[in-house]
Amino acid sequence: MTRARLAVTMGDPSGVGPEVCLMLMQRAAGGIPTARPVIYGDGELLQRVSAQTGLPMPDEASIRHIPSLANADAVVCGHVAAACGRAAYDYLATAIDAALAGEVDAIVTAPINKEALRAAGIGYPGHTEILAALTNSERTCMLQYSEEVTAAFATCHCGYAEVPRLLTRQRLREVIDLTHEALTRIKKRPARLIALGLNPHAGEHGLFGNREEETIIEPELESARARGIDISGPVPPDTAFLPETRRKTDAFICMYHDQGHIPLKALAFDSAVNVTLGLPIVRTSVDHGTAFDIAWKGQANPGSIVAATQLALLLIGSRHPGNGIVTTKERQ
Amino acid sequence: MTRARLAVTMGDPSGVGPEVCLMLMQRAAGGIPTARPVIYGDGELLQRVSAQTGLPMPDEASIRHIPSLANADAVVCGHVAAACGRAAYDYLATAIDAALAGEVDAIVTAPINKEALRAAGIGYPGHTEILAALTNSERTCMLQYSEEVTAAFATCHCGYAEVPRLLTRQRLREVIDLTHEALTRIKKRPARLIALGLNPHAGEHGLFGNREEETIIEPELESARARGIDISGPVPPDTAFLPETRRKTDAFICMYHDQGHIPLKALAFDSAVNVTLGLPIVRTSVDHGTAFDIAWKGQANPGSIVAATQLALLLIGSRHPGNGIVTTKERQ
Repeated sequence: MTRARLAVTMGDPSGVGPEVCLMLMQRAAGGIPTARPVIYGDGELLQRVSAQTGLPMPDEASIRHIPSLANADAVVCGHVAAACGRAAYDYLATAIDAALAGEVDAIVTAPINKEALRAAGIGYPGHTEILAALTNSERTCMLQYSEEVTAAFATCHCGYAEVPRLLTRQRLREVIDLTHEALTRIKKRPARLIALGLNPHAGEHGLFGNREEETIIEPELESARARGIDISGPVPPDTAFLPETRRKTDAFICMYHDQGHIPLKALAFDSAVNVTLGLPIVRTSVDHGTAFDIAWKGQANPGSIVAATQLALLLIGSRHPGNGIVTTKERQ
Repeated sequence: MTRARLAVTMGDPSGVGPEVCLMLMQRAAGGIPTARPVIYGDGELLQRVSAQTGLPMPDEASIRHIPSLANADAVVCGHVAAACGRAAYDYLATAIDAALAGEVDAIVTAPINKEALRAAGIGYPGHTEILAALTNSERTCMLQYSEEVTAAFATCHCGYAEVPRLLTRQRLREVIDLTHEALTRIKKRPARLIALGLNPHAGEHGLFGNREEETIIEPELESARARGIDISGPVPPDTAFLPETRRKTDAFICMYHDQGHIPLKALAFDSAVNVTLGLPIVRTSVDHGTAFDIAWKGQANPGSIVAATQLALLLIGSRHPGNGIVTTKERQ
């Protein structure tokens, strides 16, 4: 059985990215027979974090050294720095090239820092936008996956007031289709989806809001059902996430960032995985930030990067019903 | 020790209100030595629900019969009806009169149905608006209280798109002051509050949104701190409700309905209590609706009405440090 090759990007060198990568490699050495993860990052920097935290260094073949940092010794943990923003971008860009070239089967990303990216003059607000641009993907969507609750986002990183303008029927259709396709692959059966309303109580028959439920959401749900997709809603957002509903739902289609992120963080803080749907490559990510306050202390929880790796394997493997894992060659 | 007198309104006759009132009285008969609850509703209707569910009828002194329904036998459980909307309003209006006249110390309300109210030609969308109007209260605020998480709402029953316009500095000041006062009474020490941002990541220094955090929320938090109120924020909404933060926070000041209702329902579905702050009377309410689908089956969970009763007692009692409970006479 050939093991799936994963590019694990180290993220911002001064955050918790390096140590969660080390923790992942420590586990992988003992226990992921189906995967061969390789850290895309800086070998010297990893050595420093290893020395400081006591986490073991992986073997050389498990690190792809990308010489972006002029001086790994100059990195100060827990600080925004242009050099770190640039390096995090370079690790990701190299991993994307490797995935597009078929050298790896998926990318798993550790956290980057938006302010550091900006300080480096990189004009993307985050991972998703970089991935979409470097792979020429026009139709992408963020999915947050966990065993407890999974959510896809019709709008995401924008201001509260911008949501009603961005919430179009076309956008909803994209998100429903991408989510249906991904969850059907993950679950290996037709996915069961629920769409939330935009307004309190899903508008309560026009009592609250501008009838976005009736004019935008409902018609697209009917259209999705006509295409054979199992989707209900729009449901009142506040009661959507009760345990009984969660148990019978593979993914919630959320209208805006906090509608889905609030229950996700409350219910699955350390185990959620961020997936970008709509890319030509498989990409999963941790659900936490750079956590500068605890960086390089060995206190970070590897739950999310381990879950991200497992989900990446599931997304790769489910493309082939055979052994569960497939190499890039087989996939082409 | 004089027992506190509570008016428990029966709510919409065709919903779960009557049975949760019967369940409350069953418990009260055995176990609330400090309170004397009286159902404000319809004796014959309660008799029907008692017969159908097997729940015992309370003694006659525990029911204040309000003859609003022309024929209690004509009520069909689980249906919207104008007569039921009118009756639910009449029970509430009578209880408000009793509280204003000092005949009872607090009102605890079972759920009403908005559509039934409308069918009856009553121009208020819900309890809070009726209470504000009939007590001439200009400055009210909804608080959802539970042991797990407590939230106050700067805006509440309005459309998603209306929130930015309604979110003013004056409104925030009202909500902060009312919440600080109530939680300080409940906790018997200075309350610890957290305000959430409006935008994803609380705007992330202007990256998302129209700087509502900097121009509206932050100045009011500074002003509140200057008045001696312990309040932090604005914090990113999605990480606000993590267990560690919940443990050290008495109440979250939420900017809109679903920002607070989503975690409340997910974390404290059967035990949350709705309190209207800013009224001249004490009023608490169940946190659930009429649940027409399970009405009159005896399956409703009395957790919320029991919690509402206990919180009402706490709000009455904490006004006097003495025996914990005070009669209306003593309070005047």
